[in-house]
Amino acid sequence: MRSRFHKELDELRARLLRMGGLAEQAVDRACQAYIDRDLKRCQMVLEGETQINIAEREIDELAFDLLAMQQPMAVDLRFILAVTKINADLERVGDQAVNIAERVMDMVELPKVDLPVDVPRMATAVSAMVRRALESFIEGKAELAQAVLEMDNVIDRMRDDAFITLVKVMNDRPEATRQALDALLIARNLERVADHATNIAEDVIFWVRGADVRHNVAPESTATQPVPDAR
Amino acid sequence: MRSRFHKELDELRARLLRMGGLAEQAVDRACQAYIDRDLKRCQMVLEGETQINIAEREIDELAFDLLAMQQPMAVDLRFILAVTKINADLERVGDQAVNIAERVMDMVELPKVDLPVDVPRMATAVSAMVRRALESFIEGKAELAQAVLEMDNVIDRMRDDAFITLVKVMNDRPEATRQALDALLIARNLERVADHATNIAEDVIFWVRGADVRHNVAPESTATQPVPDAR
Repeated sequence: MRSRFHKELDELRARLLRMGGLAEQAVDRACQAYIDRDLKRCQMVLEGETQINIAEREIDELAFDLLAMQQPMAVDLRFILAVTKINADLERVGDQAVNIAERVMDMVELPKVDLPVDVPRMATAVSAMVRRALESFIEGKAELAQAVLEMDNVIDRMRDDAFITLVKVMNDRPEATRQALDALLIARNLERVADHATNIAEDVIFWVRGADVRHNVAPESTATQPVPDAR
Repeated sequence: MRSRFHKELDELRARLLRMGGLAEQAVDRACQAYIDRDLKRCQMVLEGETQINIAEREIDELAFDLLAMQQPMAVDLRFILAVTKINADLERVGDQAVNIAERVMDMVELPKVDLPVDVPRMATAVSAMVRRALESFIEGKAELAQAVLEMDNVIDRMRDDAFITLVKVMNDRPEATRQALDALLIARNLERVADHATNIAEDVIFWVRGADVRHNVAPESTATQPVPDAR
């Protein structure tokens, strides 16, 4: 039978996953809005921000209550601290989605121009990073988190390519400067989402590996970890 | 006589302040490098990043040990959680300084052009925000933190002005496009530093007000707070 403390830990995990779902949805919506030049979707992203901010506060409060409730084991402590950090990153993923939506709103006001940059491909890769970072958290697997860290270089390269291509557009086609700038800023926002996914992956590693390092200190409490990979 | 626990809390605060000093210094150096087109200062910023990252990890570990050591009072708990959050924001301030330094390095490679944008003024305002956010933390004063939140709007306006001015430069003077873009990205990086200062101020409010709200739960432990403003 699970203690109240462990039930609340489960609740904390469930809430963080919902929060992750909201943040991921916001990014996907903002990118779909870019593809379809869809102001209504932009508006949904802006409105969703409040919900994400509320979820963030609630998770922080629950984490606080859990820490206050009783002396958690080392492994649970690391888990709770990782949750508060991942929570902050997810909230900022939501902020980036808002930034993207704002750029899209700017673009929709301007004449449509063809830009030689594949924002949707970058968006897909970035979304995958966020999703996998959350999966590594759900499964408590450092090697999944490690894979996320490696994906970050790919995104950085995509961003650099977009940068070079779009600066060239600005130089060659002054009438498209502003649209190119919007696209460039969206690429940067996506890169920042990837950075947050990287932070989340690092927090998962901190939690899982740290827990393992201290395993002999608190061997009886592994309830918060599904199957932490050993070593 | 102060307990070991409270001595370690003091140590945690001292370390966070040193970390804050490093992050602030990095931003100041990057901005001075912009003014002087000084590659050596850029290099110092890049090299300083490692030091900041190490400091971040050490603070996290100390916070973790403090939470593990004994059941902290509610007010101390909020303090420790606030420290871990502020810590993460300071690390990212350092990252923004690196981004600025990288843009400066790009600019120095290009012909010098006159840009109608006052980056140093924006940098000064942003530095002041970081400094005051840290002061509000040192003094545990929510009203100082509140003042930081209000400064954020000023920075946002400066960034918007820079944006408009620099897009105009890109349109009118194609030969200055890339330099203008670098300056624009620096303005955005500074805006992000301001966002982190805002986050820090919010964490101070969470700590101080939250501590006050729960004051009757843990009235005997106020050692971590110099003079929290009442109510």
